Amino acid sequence: MPAAEYMRDMVARSSFIRKMFEEGIKLKAQFGPENVFDFSLGNPDLPPPPQFKTTLRDLVEEMDGHGYMPNPGWPQVRTAVAEYLTREQGVELKMEHVVMTPGAAGGLHVALKSIFNPGEELITPAPYFVEYGTYAQISGGKLVTVPTGPGFGLDPAAVEAALTERTRAVLINSPNNPTGAVYTQEQLEGLARVLEGAKSRWNRRIYLISDEPYRKIVYDGLKVPSIFRVYPHTFLVTSYSKELSLAGERIGFVAVHPQAEDVGELCQVMVIANRIFYVNAPSMMQLAVGRLQGVCVDVSVYQRRRDIFYEGLIRAGYQVEKPGGAFYLFPKSPLPDDVAFTGLLKEERILVVPGSGFGGPGYFRISYAVPDRTISASLEGFRRALEKA
Amino acid sequence: MPAAEYMRDMVARSSFIRKMFEEGIKLKAQFGPENVFDFSLGNPDLPPPPQFKTTLRDLVEEMDGHGYMPNPGWPQVRTAVAEYLTREQGVELKMEHVVMTPGAAGGLHVALKSIFNPGEELITPAPYFVEYGTYAQISGGKLVTVPTGPGFGLDPAAVEAALTERTRAVLINSPNNPTGAVYTQEQLEGLARVLEGAKSRWNRRIYLISDEPYRKIVYDGLKVPSIFRVYPHTFLVTSYSKELSLAGERIGFVAVHPQAEDVGELCQVMVIANRIFYVNAPSMMQLAVGRLQGVCVDVSVYQRRRDIFYEGLIRAGYQVEKPGGAFYLFPKSPLPDDVAFTGLLKEERILVVPGSGFGGPGYFRISYAVPDRTISASLEGFRRALEKA
Repeated sequence: MPAAEYMRDMVARSSFIRKMFEEGIKLKAQFGPENVFDFSLGNPDLPPPPQFKTTLRDLVEEMDGHGYMPNPGWPQVRTAVAEYLTREQGVELKMEHVVMTPGAAGGLHVALKSIFNPGEELITPAPYFVEYGTYAQISGGKLVTVPTGPGFGLDPAAVEAALTERTRAVLINSPNNPTGAVYTQEQLEGLARVLEGAKSRWNRRIYLISDEPYRKIVYDGLKVPSIFRVYPHTFLVTSYSKELSLAGERIGFVAVHPQAEDVGELCQVMVIANRIFYVNAPSMMQLAVGRLQGVCVDVSVYQRRRDIFYEGLIRAGYQVEKPGGAFYLFPKSPLPDDVAFTGLLKEERILVVPGSGFGGPGYFRISYAVPDRTISASLEGFRRALEKA
Repeated sequence: MPAAEYMRDMVARSSFIRKMFEEGIKLKAQFGPENVFDFSLGNPDLPPPPQFKTTLRDLVEEMDGHGYMPNPGWPQVRTAVAEYLTREQGVELKMEHVVMTPGAAGGLHVALKSIFNPGEELITPAPYFVEYGTYAQISGGKLVTVPTGPGFGLDPAAVEAALTERTRAVLINSPNNPTGAVYTQEQLEGLARVLEGAKSRWNRRIYLISDEPYRKIVYDGLKVPSIFRVYPHTFLVTSYSKELSLAGERIGFVAVHPQAEDVGELCQVMVIANRIFYVNAPSMMQLAVGRLQGVCVDVSVYQRRRDIFYEGLIRAGYQVEKPGGAFYLFPKSPLPDDVAFTGLLKEERILVVPGSGFGGPGYFRISYAVPDRTISASLEGFRRALEKA
């Protein structure tokens, strides 16, 4: 057996997604890519805002070297992030609370690795981003999922029911991948009460990890509540992948609340975890995002697509929530077997991901990070698949 | 206890290096940075070759998007790397044997994570790069060190003596950090015989991981042998950090030999390990290095510095090998206690790293990735410290 046992499991688990991906390639080869409606990937298709190119141009000329900086990142970039977060979150941060990481995935690894001991549990509401289980596992932890409430909202009572003396942290993702749900202030406050209750009960601090890469991708004037104002024992993890359309450049950060219990030690271990996994986040991209705090792609484009898609699916007869953020729809599968239904969609040359892959069986995920015309042209296929179901 | 137990250990272990670093900052504040001779960091100070800036300029204008590419990297970049390696190594590679990673550290994580099961052993010759132990540990493995021979050369017999039925892989690093040693063809062939012998004895394939980020930083016309020609069951790991002076940009790769045992499965698991840890290597830097295969900084600058430093130390009375590559010298400490001697050097405002930190007690590491004048101006201080010892 050449490969690590653990990795052989991973190969088996990911073979389903790979099969889907390969079938997609086959379909595109057979019918031409323009005749395949690929809603399977959460890869932002909007170009970065124009300021990004200008900033890169400046940096190419200005940067004399591309060597190491201190492991947690360029001080001026960490300072810019801390200042921006101070305004956004309404809680005063300093640069030492911020570690620049390769994307939000990097930030999650750093946060998890910093606090998890073997066998400790990480609670997350389902449906959830497919890699959370793996991330928990490589940090020695174990993912425990809890159901969401109406509209895939956060259900603090469900979290409370899942708490044990082994619970180390709760991981939330709002706006959510795959559902697009945005958790309300009330839901978050309810969660904070539950976590404070656990502290009284077990004299054990449960940390909150808030994965927020879609924070700026919200619609209809919705505001994502400040998680730092709700619960101080929190790691805020995010990336510029969606708000600046930089997913391939791997740049984001993890910030710890300045009043988190044992914040000093947490800042130390975050720096070391980041060094071990990543050495540092990519240098030029750090400098670029440091100059582009608050800049964002044109979210109205995503909102328009959401509206076209949502209304089209409703007209076609689908049951689907109208999500407040991210660029996903998570309709109910007309067949109880969501994998079977995605097969029917494939006959219409429509590629989506079964909800089972996200701990949400009976649903499927649509990514609308694609041109409007792809959405409009697919609706007839969605209608036909529903008829066949 | 907020932090993971394991990370608390890491904080303790790294406190020594941090203390050194902080004392360095204090010295620089006290005497002015130009009056402190800092040889502690392996951070390439040469600017990238001029073609790098030109290539970045082109990419800034050409790139429409910065989204995800396939996890193992841009196909055209993997192909360019495979073609370059085919010429360099004399073994024909295809793009599927190459995974682009965030630096050589990323490549090592991917290779180790791909093959290590809990408790299996990774053998490496000491002195060795300080993070190898940590890398083995987070992959579930255990680092086992073996002594080197004269001039810090590879000693196949020492590796043979350390083999057990739990040995999973051998990790070599030539040109070496911290010693600058370059392993010879004969030494590598000896190692290959030892590893083949282990296969006969235990019917268990031992993989070789060759960490080669300093491959192009060699002197006096020296050639680094092709590791792929010597032993087929090999992962070649490298980065562009040193040859293009891009350490902060985190770009490198891992390549597996096309005739490695179970190469198909290894290619699969490498892709998944890379996805889990990193999603993908930074996009624009991938495209940049793809266009700069074979381009290298001016190595004659490093050779000149080695010569100034080596001759100066010899004249001052130090015992030191003249290394064939990398940008380090690893002199014998005049005191048996290398930490104590680095204290004497600090009194001369000279910062170096004790060999103990690299599994090489009784020595110290000098990085000469610094301007010539820093080297020349430090030699009097080295002489005085030796007198005091």
